[in-house]
Amino acid sequence: MTQSLSHSTTKNNGKEGMKQEHVNQIQNAISAIEKRNIQNVFFVACGGSMASLSFGDYFVTKDTGKPSFVYTSNEFVHSQPKGLNENSLVILRSHSGTTPETVKAATYARNIGALTVAISMDTESPLCKEAEYVLHYNYKDGSNAIDGEIGIYYTFIFKLLKTLTGDEKYDRGIEQLSNLEGLIETNQEKHKEAAFEFGKRNKREKTIYTMASGAYIHHAYSFTSCLLMEMLWINSNAIHSGEYFHGPFEITDYDVPFLLIVGEGPSKPLDQRALDFVTKYSEKVEVVDVSKFDYSGVDDDLKEYFGPALAGPVMRLYADGLAEHTGHPLSVRRYMWKMEY
Amino acid sequence: MTQSLSHSTTKNNGKEGMKQEHVNQIQNAISAIEKRNIQNVFFVACGGSMASLSFGDYFVTKDTGKPSFVYTSNEFVHSQPKGLNENSLVILRSHSGTTPETVKAATYARNIGALTVAISMDTESPLCKEAEYVLHYNYKDGSNAIDGEIGIYYTFIFKLLKTLTGDEKYDRGIEQLSNLEGLIETNQEKHKEAAFEFGKRNKREKTIYTMASGAYIHHAYSFTSCLLMEMLWINSNAIHSGEYFHGPFEITDYDVPFLLIVGEGPSKPLDQRALDFVTKYSEKVEVVDVSKFDYSGVDDDLKEYFGPALAGPVMRLYADGLAEHTGHPLSVRRYMWKMEY
Repeated sequence: MTQSLSHSTTKNNGKEGMKQEHVNQIQNAISAIEKRNIQNVFFVACGGSMASLSFGDYFVTKDTGKPSFVYTSNEFVHSQPKGLNENSLVILRSHSGTTPETVKAATYARNIGALTVAISMDTESPLCKEAEYVLHYNYKDGSNAIDGEIGIYYTFIFKLLKTLTGDEKYDRGIEQLSNLEGLIETNQEKHKEAAFEFGKRNKREKTIYTMASGAYIHHAYSFTSCLLMEMLWINSNAIHSGEYFHGPFEITDYDVPFLLIVGEGPSKPLDQRALDFVTKYSEKVEVVDVSKFDYSGVDDDLKEYFGPALAGPVMRLYADGLAEHTGHPLSVRRYMWKMEY
Repeated sequence: MTQSLSHSTTKNNGKEGMKQEHVNQIQNAISAIEKRNIQNVFFVACGGSMASLSFGDYFVTKDTGKPSFVYTSNEFVHSQPKGLNENSLVILRSHSGTTPETVKAATYARNIGALTVAISMDTESPLCKEAEYVLHYNYKDGSNAIDGEIGIYYTFIFKLLKTLTGDEKYDRGIEQLSNLEGLIETNQEKHKEAAFEFGKRNKREKTIYTMASGAYIHHAYSFTSCLLMEMLWINSNAIHSGEYFHGPFEITDYDVPFLLIVGEGPSKPLDQRALDFVTKYSEKVEVVDVSKFDYSGVDDDLKEYFGPALAGPVMRLYADGLAEHTGHPLSVRRYMWKMEY
């Protein structure tokens, strides 16, 4: 399925509260989680939706010590992980809510007695009907970003992390998400020209590698799978900056293009090391430095959470740049929507 | 670091017991594990070594319900997963035992009080000195495969699974590993010609995708990172067969080569579905069907464990085929062994 990282069109440039319906949905899911003795968390989806959920897995693993896992839906249903039980929280996501593998995963998890939470733009979708709790997000309807997929998901994740750890910083995280709309805009603005130029310079490239570490490996995965391979038909591979030196770096040459994300968080030194090497041997390196983003209104200790939230809409611009200069719109498909598979 | 999937040269074609020194090392590690209340398992290494360890993670997750995680060493040290504590088992691996990131990971895990087990061909290496328990394997010394990296690792993993579950089938697994040497040979023999022809047909290709699911995604990762990108300088990406339909499949065209592993195990239907699609739209699909391997002397319920053990040496032949026909030996490097990085 297509990822959908573009945020909703702005109407309200300033701060705005989340719609009450969304607040209630998140609170209902959190209340159910609080009532259950949750022993592990599974994030289950396909493609871009799986990558988007993975940020939650990253922070649950890093901050809580609670076992947390990411599965592509079909593998989840077939491999039947033994740790899945009635004390499991299973978070599922599908933009349309129709992805058959993810609907099946919800049924499977629910039959085992796990607590299921579905995230989608359509609460009437099969996925939302299959899951016990539903988080809806607005999509391109002109509403504030806090009610869009990033706002809803990060609010939920902050609340989940608060529930699992009790740390007050996640409350500040939720408050500061009121800056999301403005921050998405300023950071997109900051990268607009670079992204356009990236598209211009790389329009003849048949292969563009992406590279990242920490939470950002999921942005690299999304960009590789959904934007480059799916939407632009450009060969790619999302290389982990730490793994780069253990095989993939031998592919590096003066004419091999890399799009590298320097992250904001503990694994930034891995990205920096990869960047130092790759810029020495390739003349075609583009860097998105998330640590240099505008984080106005965000506390220092929360930047590592906001970085991944803000990177998606910025990355999208680099795909737009390629689409513009290759004349290949991001909406074109060979197979998807055209046939059964 | 280079992966090293090739098995030792045969001297003893028949069954042969493991060397006593190796038996003792494995037993010492298992005894230490039994004494500790192990709550989770971390598999930590880089590149091909990480991929090789990942089979352990796959089976621990699928069979035991014990939380299990795979980390590239540097990410492990920097992200500092909260679940790591004195009740963690940390299994590390480096062929030479010198990989600096993995040595640091051993130090980090040991300082936290976790139980550390290192796997290497050199017990005098920094990694083995840093870890509490050491598993040595023979490498290209003409000894039986049971004392090589596959034999040692699968014996250890079967014993670990037995310790964690009590299931007798893992004892049978250990017994039947006495067939490993012969099975590696017969399965390599079965694929020799196909691998040679694959190399011949694909020698001009600049990009070859790999695809797999379940445990085999780690073979695809190894083949992509270490054999295609590192050793052959061919662009690649290891695509999960379940994820294929959620982005990457749009890259498929009549002239795009894929090397697909059809696995032996629960996620085989995912591979079959991807195979059905990809063969319809690409004229350059090569299949390694692990479910059709020779499993003489292996019980039906153990085939899913032996499949991943046997697939490595078979996959290696496909890289040999490319090396033969491209005239690019697998030992050539641009950067590795030549500079500091």
